[in-house]
Amino acid sequence: MKTKGKIYVVGIGPGNREHMSVRAIEAIQKADVIIGYKTYIDLIRDLVAGKEVIDSGMKKEVERCNLTLDKAMEGHQVAIISSGDAGVYGMAGIMLEVKYERMSDIEIEVVPGITAASAASAALGAPMMHDFTVISLSDLLTDWELIRKRLECAAVGDFIIALYNPKSMGRVHQIEEAREIFLKHKAKTTPVGIVKNAKRKDEEIILTDLENMLNHEIDMLTVVIVGNSNTYIKDGKMITPRGYRI
Amino acid sequence: MKTKGKIYVVGIGPGNREHMSVRAIEAIQKADVIIGYKTYIDLIRDLVAGKEVIDSGMKKEVERCNLTLDKAMEGHQVAIISSGDAGVYGMAGIMLEVKYERMSDIEIEVVPGITAASAASAALGAPMMHDFTVISLSDLLTDWELIRKRLECAAVGDFIIALYNPKSMGRVHQIEEAREIFLKHKAKTTPVGIVKNAKRKDEEIILTDLENMLNHEIDMLTVVIVGNSNTYIKDGKMITPRGYRI
Ligand SMILES: C[S@@+](CC[C@H](N)C(=O)[O-])C[C@H]1O[C@@H](n2cnc3c(N)ncnc32)[C@H](O)[C@@H]1O
Ligand SMILES: C[S@@+](CC[C@H](N)C(=O)[O-])C[C@H]1O[C@@H](n2cnc3c(N)ncnc32)[C@H](O)[C@@H]1O
Repeated sequence: MKTKGKIYVVGIGPGNREHMSVRAIEAIQKADVIIGYKTYIDLIRDLVAGKEVIDSGMKKEVERCNLTLDKAMEGHQVAIISSGDAGVYGMAGIMLEVKYERMSDIEIEVVPGITAASAASAALGAPMMHDFTVISLSDLLTDWELIRKRLECAAVGDFIIALYNPKSMGRVHQIEEAREIFLKHKAKTTPVGIVKNAKRKDEEIILTDLENMLNHEIDMLTVVIVGNSNTYIKDGKMITPRGYRI
Repeated sequence: MKTKGKIYVVGIGPGNREHMSVRAIEAIQKADVIIGYKTYIDLIRDLVAGKEVIDSGMKKEVERCNLTLDKAMEGHQVAIISSGDAGVYGMAGIMLEVKYERMSDIEIEVVPGITAASAASAALGAPMMHDFTVISLSDLLTDWELIRKRLECAAVGDFIIALYNPKSMGRVHQIEEAREIFLKHKAKTTPVGIVKNAKRKDEEIILTDLENMLNHEIDMLTVVIVGNSNTYIKDGKMITPRGYRI
């Protein structure tokens, strides 16, 4: 009898092994086929020894999911890898969509992970202690006007704001426009934390504010966290009080 | 020489051991004093054997942090426990605030965890694949008018919305008002996922919509996830497409 295939959509956390969940490690150990973008596979290289590893290109998400489903339908246990949480701009949604599109009944388990905002937040101190929004500045798949509207709503609501995909080589004006939108509603002294490679080798932390944030390097390996009106910086930590009387 | 104390503010994830990070387990193992709310300590009971365990009451956050600092200043390695991510309505902020208030130079490491929204999202399928907000409906520490404003902004921005602390025994109208605010801007057919004890023993999942959500049990062990205008439910899964062509 052929074994029954299964798909694990695994969020491996921000980077280093130590911030992976026990279940994520287990899922990768159980799988005999590992599929993912090379950079992420490299982060778990030692866990995948002896397995079939399929490094796939960056912008080939649909292809990667089809391949994952093919392998599972052959009876394999397949782990498809996302960084951070697979459910936050990761592979969970597209994997489920491909499954339904192909009317497959393969079991899919989404294994949650620590998302970049949580990792960056821990590195900065405690900036996300109150209501927050997570917004991707990538307009590859989303209308820029909709993103602008969300930036505006997030600022009006005095949310803490975590920006994913803030800037790439070919995409630089979005972070500038985002900052302008914020400045309409937030003070220019509002603290901003810029974290590159959060909780990963080569972590870099910058503490700045809305006025000066563009003077620092921001790229695709970076999360930008903009505080709310109560956020402050003290002794190198960024903190948003929740309102306790101390 | 006295050993140098250290504080770990540890997010233990949504519940079961398997969703804790390797670093969180390590931090608890390193600590000789464990401080936290009883319900959370119970979730890691086997990890704390042989250690000094201080179960503290629910609404005593400041006291708990002062005690943590006292212990660390005596030279102990102290782990103070939050559920989910310590940086999301957890103990990270207040612990740092207490440290600065008392002008201590004790080292504090915030160990991030998988937050309830990520766990609930994985249990539901993939509802949080696009820009989202996390809002607590608890008005113990926050003005209800500010929370209302944030609910409104989140709805206007067509964000996916994760509601924490949605309802308690003595606090029931907030979730009703939240729903009314959402209905001003979102269709009544907007999918809603209600997850109790996400990724924990006794997990319960309900898929419903804005119109019918109040016909289901919602309590303090629950996260409520409200979709955006593209979210749909299929085969028992809640999915927000990100816009890939399949
Ligand atoms: C396609 S998204 C994937 C997000 C991921 N699924 C998560 O939950 O963290 C990629 C973006 O996540 C952010 N990111 C992921 N890991 C990061 C890390 N360790 N440090 C800083 N930013 C990170 C960056 O903004 C990056 O452009
Ligand atoms: C004080 S907040 C703590 C949040 C926690 N620090 C986190 O990051 O998940 C408590 C609220 O978190 C949510 N919550 C925490 N763990 C949960 C779980 N396993 N399932 C569902 N909701 C959970 C509930 O809304 C609860 O009222």
